[in-house]
Amino acid sequence: MARVAVDVVIKPEILDPQGKAILAALGRSGHTGITSVRQGKHFDLEVDDSVTDAELEEIAGTLLANPVIETWTVTRLAEVAG
Amino acid sequence: MARVAVDVVIKPEILDPQGKAILAALGRSGHTGITSVRQGKHFDLEVDDSVTDAELEEIAGTLLANPVIETWTVTRLAEVAG
Repeated sequence: MARVAVDVVIKPEILDPQGKAILAALGRSGHTGITSVRQGKHFDLEVDDSVTDAELEEIAGTLLANPVIETWTVTRLAEVAG
Repeated sequence: MARVAVDVVIKPEILDPQGKAILAALGRSGHTGITSVRQGKHFDLEVDDSVTDAELEEIAGTLLANPVIETWTVTRLAEVAG
């Protein structure tokens, strides 16, 4: 068993109105040191040892992210006992 | 300038129907090696050097996450020139 994190973010050239709204709210709250916010999705997966990196890439690129407008990173976090 | 990632996930004891739906869809697509999926939010921030780790924790715990039902991790990724 392994834990895998998949982070999906909108491509930099595509507008992220959600991130812009958060940035504005941070400014109004006095957190003016934050200069950019992009919001995306985070997935925590538990996978068994039969799952290869190639299968994880395929899952991320077809089921978790929309490759037209999003990019993603796949990170293996740790082996889990069992 | 630094890049900071904030990952927000629902606490383990709280049901995550979105993650369950993704897990079911993965199973139907033949990806049976995935045993658990939890969906959360990912934030990519750019912060200037005046922003301390304590301020980032406060932002994460009050503006980006709901501390009643969610946990979060703050990770400084890299210094960015400028």
